[in-house]
This record gives sequence, structure tokens and C-alpha cells, in this order.
Amino acid sequence: MTGHTDPVTSSLDPSIAARLKRSPDGLVAAIVQQHDTGEVLMLGWMDDEALARTLTSDRATYWSRSRQEYWVKGETSGNRQWVKEVRLDCDGDTLLVKVDQEGPACHTGTRTCFDADVLLADD
Amino acid sequence: MTGHTDPVTSSLDPSIAARLKRSPDGLVAAIVQQHDTGEVLMLGWMDDEALARTLTSDRATYWSRSRQEYWVKGETSGNRQWVKEVRLDCDGDTLLVKVDQEGPACHTGTRTCFDADVLLADD
Repeated sequence: MTGHTDPVTSSLDPSIAARLKRSPDGLVAAIVQQHDTGEVLMLGWMDDEALARTLTSDRATYWSRSRQEYWVKGETSGNRQWVKEVRLDCDGDTLLVKVDQEGPACHTGTRTCFDADVLLADD
Repeated sequence: MTGHTDPVTSSLDPSIAARLKRSPDGLVAAIVQQHDTGEVLMLGWMDDEALARTLTSDRATYWSRSRQEYWVKGETSGNRQWVKEVRLDCDGDTLLVKVDQEGPACHTGTRTCFDADVLLADD
């Protein structure tokens, strides 16, 4: 039993909930992109309730798989994400969340979570 | 037992393999982005062998969770992805794959997998 909200008890619009194809632990992937520059900032995970809060609060909310709790991005660090646009992909298991990121998105202090480890570089 | 290659028998560089944090079914998420425009095209999944092939062949290769087989993007459709850059995120479970996408990335015929379903629109 996971700690997060059952889809039937979340506040997510039922017509959106019906289109989600959740992982076995009830989550969809959320690709987070800076709305104006196009930088891919991070990948997070959302259950129905995290998505509902993201759609209605202007602030990106995720489900932390490691801590098993909701987290509002930037709540402790101040590096907040202001939600601009949210899209669902063709098979309903991935969100594209366009945000305005304050400061670094990565907990390591870099702008994005993809800044440090380049496996293959563009020529 | 899944059908894909065990990490120890894949051709992936061991120093890269050691940095991956795989899901229970041995996969990492791969965010696919058009290298010049910044469009997020799709989310795929890779095991060690798919990543090895992506890094060495110029063409993006994924592990299909539904079909339980490797797929080289565009092999049947012609909508090929030419790999420009590959990055690993801070906690080793997500790749950012920058590609040059020929034609539509989505099997529905749209440019990206996020074109059809807007949950929240930018003002």
C-alpha cells in the first residue's frame, strides 16, 4: 500500500483522470521544461492528486517516490516552479509541464538535472 | 523474467552502467528533445543495451515495454531520430536524448506526442 491518494478520492477532474495510464504505483511521469527557453529541467512523478494541485495552484507539485510524500517544488529551497502549461501525451502516461523556474531546478544547484553528466556530446 | 538484456551482458560502457539507477524492470526513462528547436518530442525507455546502441549507432533505440522488444525509432515508419547528444540526470534514472527528428515523432502522426491533449494552456 502506497501512501498517496487513491485516484477515486483525488480532486482531479474525472475526465482527465480517465485519460491517465498510470504505472503500477499509480504515477505518471512529468517532464518539466522551462517555458520560454525550452530547457528540459528535470523529470518528476505525479499521482492524480499531485496533478490536480499542479493544475489548480500555479505551483508544480510532485509525488516523491523516495520520501513517499507530496512535494511542492521550491517550498523549502525557494527554487519555485510557476506552472504555465500542462500537456498529456498520446498514450496518457507522460505529462509535459512547462514552468517558469526560479533559480536552479536541480537539488545539486545546477540549472537543470542534466547539466553534469554528458554521455555523448554534439559535434 | 523480462526479455531484454541483463546489464552484465550488455555492451554498455561499464563506467556508464555503474551510474544508472534502473527501475525494477531494468529501465531508465529517456526524454527525447529536438536538438535545435527544443521541442520535447516523446518519452521512451531504455535498458543498458538500448542505451549502448543509441550511443554508438547515431540512431535512437528504445526498449518497448508493451511489445517487450528493442525498437529503432523510424525503422518501419521512416521517421528516424538521429542522435546528437545524450545526458544522464543527477540521480541516474533519466536520460535526455537530443535528436534530429525526421517527420513526426508520434505514432499518431503529430510532430510530438504532446500536441493533442492540453490540460492547462498558457495565458
